[in-house]
Amino acid sequence: MPDKVSPPIPDIVIGRLPLYLRALKRLEQEGKLVTSSQELGSRLDISSAQIRKDLSHFGGFGKQGTGYHIDFLIERLQAVLQVNQEWKVALVGAGNLGAAISHYRGFQDRGFRIAHIFDSSPEKLGEAIGEHRVRSVQEMAALIAEEDIKIAMLAVPASQAQAVADQLVQAGIRAILNYAPININVRADVEVQYIDPVSHLQHMTYYLRD
Amino acid sequence: MPDKVSPPIPDIVIGRLPLYLRALKRLEQEGKLVTSSQELGSRLDISSAQIRKDLSHFGGFGKQGTGYHIDFLIERLQAVLQVNQEWKVALVGAGNLGAAISHYRGFQDRGFRIAHIFDSSPEKLGEAIGEHRVRSVQEMAALIAEEDIKIAMLAVPASQAQAVADQLVQAGIRAILNYAPININVRADVEVQYIDPVSHLQHMTYYLRD
Repeated sequence: MPDKVSPPIPDIVIGRLPLYLRALKRLEQEGKLVTSSQELGSRLDISSAQIRKDLSHFGGFGKQGTGYHIDFLIERLQAVLQVNQEWKVALVGAGNLGAAISHYRGFQDRGFRIAHIFDSSPEKLGEAIGEHRVRSVQEMAALIAEEDIKIAMLAVPASQAQAVADQLVQAGIRAILNYAPININVRADVEVQYIDPVSHLQHMTYYLRD
Repeated sequence: MPDKVSPPIPDIVIGRLPLYLRALKRLEQEGKLVTSSQELGSRLDISSAQIRKDLSHFGGFGKQGTGYHIDFLIERLQAVLQVNQEWKVALVGAGNLGAAISHYRGFQDRGFRIAHIFDSSPEKLGEAIGEHRVRSVQEMAALIAEEDIKIAMLAVPASQAQAVADQLVQAGIRAILNYAPININVRADVEVQYIDPVSHLQHMTYYLRD
């Protein structure tokens, strides 16, 4: 359905859909069946008008006054975001951060599964992290191509991030979640998102004025 | 200086300033003295016009055609974001994620220092994580008040996040970086930002259409 929509939906709208999905799954866990843009909005601190407008890009999800059926809306949003399937993810970097990422339990029931963990340092190779054994970055390109992996998470030092990103893109990766505190440059058809806690902290300290 | 500016600067502009600061520090590390909105823009994938407009909110940082002095711009942005000082941070949650956060080396030279790590589970208490010993959440409120800590990072399970956030705000915390995959509701004068890797992944899978 979203393929047929034109003009393209603003990226900022797409970025809010995962938040709606997360809040809806929470409501479902709480045993609710129906919700409203008001309820969603108050949970997410987003106006109900904004939520209705965002969802209207994807067709009618609910009737005025009757609210949204949570299971239906979850299903539709999962389809729009293409997480009604499981994506394999390559994790690069097996340090403290890589280990924490690999232990994180939130990926699997939201559409993602870490398929491999790669590291460049010889002393990490073969190390057990959860159900994985750390593999060499020298095997990375072949495994990504062979298993048709499209998504990678980058948990390497800033100094290595660009070079590893280049290798990943070369191997067929089309979306990179970069934990290294540095911007990486890739082809326009490759998606990049950043996890940089310090940028969030600095954003907040702007407002800490008395 | 920013205090005198009116009307208030859009939050989306404030959110980009840490990215500019990060890129400028990188340029400085590379030994550069002067940069341009074009160079910054190409590193960050933001248009040079946007960068000039964002920076113009804070007064004149450079003359047309001569570029920006990197050290001066770093200093000004640090002052605007109030990270020309060190903020103490309380980290709540000493599991895998909390441990990874506490080992992260990127906080200190960007304005932040983890002052304490708290956890609620008795078996974690006293455990050494880096230079810290895990403290009980029962000591949390008193230490936060006593040491005038304003910022907290939340690395607890989703089911505990709201209750811990309430305690933190009660104790005097005014900015929370929440790693738990759930929205939390706090008073309007408390800042909250989220680290949710799955939301970023789901944002990208939208675009993974062939």
